[in-house]
Amino acid sequence: MLISQVATPQSIPRKVVDAITPQNTIGAVNQSNGALDINTLFAPIRPGLRLVESKLRDVDSAIFAPLAEAFVNLIGSGGKRLRPALALLSAEFNGSMQNAPHYSTVIALAASVEMLHTATLVHDDVIDGALLRRGAPTLNARWNGISTVLAGNYLFGTAAHFSAETQNMRVIALFSDTLRVIVDGELRQLKDRHNFMQKRENYYQRIYAKTASLFCAATQGAAILSQLPEERIADLNQFGYNFGMAFQIIDDILDFTGDDATLGKPAGSDLRQGTLTLPFFHYLQQHPDARSVIAALEDAQIEADDGNAAVWDEAVNLLVRDLRNSPAIEAAREEARTFLRRAVDNLAALPDNVYRHSLFGLCEYAVKRTY
Amino acid sequence: MLISQVATPQSIPRKVVDAITPQNTIGAVNQSNGALDINTLFAPIRPGLRLVESKLRDVDSAIFAPLAEAFVNLIGSGGKRLRPALALLSAEFNGSMQNAPHYSTVIALAASVEMLHTATLVHDDVIDGALLRRGAPTLNARWNGISTVLAGNYLFGTAAHFSAETQNMRVIALFSDTLRVIVDGELRQLKDRHNFMQKRENYYQRIYAKTASLFCAATQGAAILSQLPEERIADLNQFGYNFGMAFQIIDDILDFTGDDATLGKPAGSDLRQGTLTLPFFHYLQQHPDARSVIAALEDAQIEADDGNAAVWDEAVNLLVRDLRNSPAIEAAREEARTFLRRAVDNLAALPDNVYRHSLFGLCEYAVKRTY
Repeated sequence: MLISQVATPQSIPRKVVDAITPQNTIGAVNQSNGALDINTLFAPIRPGLRLVESKLRDVDSAIFAPLAEAFVNLIGSGGKRLRPALALLSAEFNGSMQNAPHYSTVIALAASVEMLHTATLVHDDVIDGALLRRGAPTLNARWNGISTVLAGNYLFGTAAHFSAETQNMRVIALFSDTLRVIVDGELRQLKDRHNFMQKRENYYQRIYAKTASLFCAATQGAAILSQLPEERIADLNQFGYNFGMAFQIIDDILDFTGDDATLGKPAGSDLRQGTLTLPFFHYLQQHPDARSVIAALEDAQIEADDGNAAVWDEAVNLLVRDLRNSPAIEAAREEARTFLRRAVDNLAALPDNVYRHSLFGLCEYAVKRTY
Repeated sequence: MLISQVATPQSIPRKVVDAITPQNTIGAVNQSNGALDINTLFAPIRPGLRLVESKLRDVDSAIFAPLAEAFVNLIGSGGKRLRPALALLSAEFNGSMQNAPHYSTVIALAASVEMLHTATLVHDDVIDGALLRRGAPTLNARWNGISTVLAGNYLFGTAAHFSAETQNMRVIALFSDTLRVIVDGELRQLKDRHNFMQKRENYYQRIYAKTASLFCAATQGAAILSQLPEERIADLNQFGYNFGMAFQIIDDILDFTGDDATLGKPAGSDLRQGTLTLPFFHYLQQHPDARSVIAALEDAQIEADDGNAAVWDEAVNLLVRDLRNSPAIEAAREEARTFLRRAVDNLAALPDNVYRHSLFGLCEYAVKRTY
């Protein structure tokens, strides 16, 4: 379905549609009104988020107790609890779940999704050898790689435990399938590194696996637990997909346009690791001599493999400078907006309540966020 | 309950009780009759084992397809499929599960348990940096550590997926709890390495986490799926515990008494890595000057930390030579026999059928095995 064919539902606030338009630019969050403040958007589910928070911090292991503080810090440092919030919001479209006796199943889902996310972050630290994540020193820098692998495994086990607490077979199956999709995507990303001839399709597959699949698990899982009809479950699944794709594309744009201080890592870090993201694909497409761009990167990579890392760094720095001032950024942004317009459309048939208002707000927030 | 208080049930074959007695020695498997052959013991559940095998080899990922062969080889090379067999045998005490329409749930449990075991083996390769496991080159030697971590994660995801296929909430919860227990134990083992002052209790905790917990998941899970009464579920859980403890103790004895060829690794490899096992604790207890033994090891370890690995190796070689000719081996063996006698007792109230006969046979096999 083309985005041009999607009629904007009457009930969707004009402001949201306006926000997701080309004239708006990412980076406008400071000029935004209160409605864009994420705390305001999360207000209707604040009690649920507190329950999730307490569940996440209850690490049930004497031996992992010393690690618990590290987990909590890692999870807490700038972590927006976006995934749990998506689950809690998505659960509120079939009567009030917050006041239902089985609200604990939604809390379990939300905690499961966030714990799975955290587990993959912990293992990503091993994989990336990254020094900083979310601005805080990574676990890996403080612990050795072995403990980090085990810590990640323990979190996987805890995530699986939480998912079992949903007491819903379909949600449990969704959880284990999502875990496999995520890991599959991580290996794809690893194999595709420094492959400058890869197709753009690989990128979409990767960000689905890495980000959108877990957003889907949060929104679809909550829809299942709240016993919505199948059509609405599908809507919320699609919302998770489109919102997740947009969210990751914007993340990948910010990796080029952000500065070191807000990113907590040097700009262009994905490319520096050889991971190609959407702005790069647009840059290549728009470049009058894409072959020379690729050849230069490949040559620099060969130099780096021979021990001359400075050549690679310099090649990346040059490309990042050129790319962030090119139309590639705007082209990638427009793709994110397209996904967000679809996400907004996916909510059209759901009841018009404060929770839907918050999901609309998150779409707006996603476009405008700067970190 | 003391072992001396356990009455040997009338229906338990005399041969089994005889086998688990001090006059028998580990290493007698070559003198054994056909009843001890593991293929004979597994015969009643052969069709189920074939279904498990095919399930294990069906790796559902294009990107992991190149790894699939490596997994299959790792899993298959000498792997006895003991854990799936325990599940399949334990499922047959409430009417025939093999012919029941929901036998697939037992197959899913058996595959889940073996896949979880394999996932931990894969990560152990990263942790140990071991060169050989089960006689075949480890994944880690062929792939880099990163791919190995991800491969392990994918197997965890697949194990979780299989456990969800049991469609039984209690079994699913048992699975995720077992995963956490195993990982918790791995970190304990890591922290306890080279701590020569640790209590023997630490050892029992470790081998429960490492081995017995998964045996319990196999036997208890199958009992749950076959809808046995709670008392019999508890019996099979206890059987898994006692059999698993004995199995790991015998493994730890063989690490001292075996030769390099049958072990696929140098004798005394646990101690060489700083992991203390039951024979070592008995050796210390029996030694007239335990303090000097510990002091010598600690000194050698300090030398090794200073880069003089040969000193540590020599200290271990000396100790292994002394220990394998000491009464410590027999003392550890007697503990294994005690666990096995309890395991046999746990089966007393179960129906006397070919499956129980095979479980008895496995207890006998456990004492006599040489690898």
